[in-house]
Amino acid sequence: MRIVVLAGGIGGARFLRGLKQAAPDAEITVIGNTGDDIHLFGLRVCPDLDTVMYTLGGGINDEQGWGRTDETFHLKEELAAYGVGPEWFGLGDRDFATHVVRTQMLGAGYPLSAVTEALCARWKPGVRLIPMTDDRVETHVAVTLPPEGAEGAAGDGAGAGAAGEQRAIHFQEYWVRLRASVPAHAVVPVGADQAKPAPGVLEAIAEADIILFPPSNPVVSIGTILAVPGIREAIADAGVPIVGLSPIVGGAPVRGMADKVLAAVGVETTAAAVAEHYGSGLLDGWLVDTADAAAVERVTAAGIRCRAVPLMMTDLDTTARMAEEALTLAEEVRA
Amino acid sequence: MRIVVLAGGIGGARFLRGLKQAAPDAEITVIGNTGDDIHLFGLRVCPDLDTVMYTLGGGINDEQGWGRTDETFHLKEELAAYGVGPEWFGLGDRDFATHVVRTQMLGAGYPLSAVTEALCARWKPGVRLIPMTDDRVETHVAVTLPPEGAEGAAGDGAGAGAAGEQRAIHFQEYWVRLRASVPAHAVVPVGADQAKPAPGVLEAIAEADIILFPPSNPVVSIGTILAVPGIREAIADAGVPIVGLSPIVGGAPVRGMADKVLAAVGVETTAAAVAEHYGSGLLDGWLVDTADAAAVERVTAAGIRCRAVPLMMTDLDTTARMAEEALTLAEEVRA
Repeated sequence: MRIVVLAGGIGGARFLRGLKQAAPDAEITVIGNTGDDIHLFGLRVCPDLDTVMYTLGGGINDEQGWGRTDETFHLKEELAAYGVGPEWFGLGDRDFATHVVRTQMLGAGYPLSAVTEALCARWKPGVRLIPMTDDRVETHVAVTLPPEGAEGAAGDGAGAGAAGEQRAIHFQEYWVRLRASVPAHAVVPVGADQAKPAPGVLEAIAEADIILFPPSNPVVSIGTILAVPGIREAIADAGVPIVGLSPIVGGAPVRGMADKVLAAVGVETTAAAVAEHYGSGLLDGWLVDTADAAAVERVTAAGIRCRAVPLMMTDLDTTARMAEEALTLAEEVRA
Repeated sequence: MRIVVLAGGIGGARFLRGLKQAAPDAEITVIGNTGDDIHLFGLRVCPDLDTVMYTLGGGINDEQGWGRTDETFHLKEELAAYGVGPEWFGLGDRDFATHVVRTQMLGAGYPLSAVTEALCARWKPGVRLIPMTDDRVETHVAVTLPPEGAEGAAGDGAGAGAAGEQRAIHFQEYWVRLRASVPAHAVVPVGADQAKPAPGVLEAIAEADIILFPPSNPVVSIGTILAVPGIREAIADAGVPIVGLSPIVGGAPVRGMADKVLAAVGVETTAAAVAEHYGSGLLDGWLVDTADAAAVERVTAAGIRCRAVPLMMTDLDTTARMAEEALTLAEEVRA
């Protein structure tokens, strides 16, 4: 059985660990989000690809969900001592090596997909991990930053008030530095419209028996992957069951701040609204948490087969049962 | 009093620590060797500049003489796990940050001299540290590598034997990886003939009251600095006392493998021969160790004022006394 999974970071990676246990013989291809990639200290950092790679390869810091186990932050401490930031992005000493190797290979002319394959040769994640694209895509968030001073600019007049500054900032700055604490008005995957799917992406989708959307962020993770021209169409046209798992439980994200970016794209933070956001043109089946059993009727009415099952990934066995439920729903859709 | 010191790595740095204690009110300008700089993992590494900066700034690993105190090597371990080398060069996690900052600034267009000044703004070494040049100079060593197999190449005939391979390798490969264990035939500061002294170098020499050659390697440290066109001439023409301290004690280098590179340039490993190598056209005074008291006569005969004093830098006070002896000898030369 060939399964294609579109994945962001922590949520996608943990789901994949469960999926591997639930379907040990499946050939799993992971199409990873690269919209939250960032250039720091001259290095190309790919947080989502690395979270998948480390999680499935046994190198993840399990408690925090990202970064390496047995990590130290001496390099970062020293950069800060030199006054070189940003300090808000947590690059550990071990993690740094991954970015050094990646940056050197990219500099030597290898595309990111080949680099990712080379890095995975060490980690052996047990899945084929492909970045959504070898082209540069960078998710920016249009925000209103709070005003720094109380007074408006000269000539603003009495009515200007302290409206704050409109700016587009890198997703990581919004997510990690600001903890999504400022109003977001739009999420823009800059460069996506010019990007091409990486080699293997469309082929994997065309050859898939099942396509899964794990409980990753529907806007900045899966939404960004779907923004690469050709990927959404290939999935919709694949003619195989497409099943997703809600990252929203009880009206709130299981982790992270998906509610903030859902609001930016005008989607309410409910399991049903996310399913409708994907739409029946894309999604065949949708799992919601038992806490959201009331949503089943609405999702079903939208033309998407839906069931309520436990969706909290508290441990590996629970996560594997979620994956089994998704595969079962996929087979029901197929039948 | 303005003192200019030409410095390599460990020997130069330790001497400078003593000189600062011996002459606390002096303005000391250090012209640092950059011929052993190396590009590793996409980063510009300047071992000698950093050793001076860390030693005088309180960040050095005192036992080994290079690298940072409280250092870890997690990044390097991870690079090795990816199969990315070289493994023989010891880049620690804290040390790595210095190279990251340097490489970013160089990439942004700052010359190495400005970068070094910026790094020193953190370390406050108490001296003005200037690289000998902002241009790229890379010391290569012509060596005979031992033959890998016993058989000569096809067609070599019976007489070819196992002569070994002639190659020019980077100084660090010769010094650190091979521990100077293969025959060296020549030492070539590649690029030196096209290099210009960094801003401030010739000015500092012209304004100096005393110029010192610490017990650094006379070939690959001080010799490389002198190979930058204009520096040797400026020193010889400065009209102030030029005093050196022998790095050779009892016919052997105090540390390192200076004997190997001295042999490559046809200089015997004795305190007297090194003084003659610099020559009376450059050197006014020369301190040898008490173990080499017999050399005083030969050096004096070569037109260089010479005295035997303890030259082992066993601790800071001893080193400060060495520096005092050098300053005293300089004043005798002047008088």
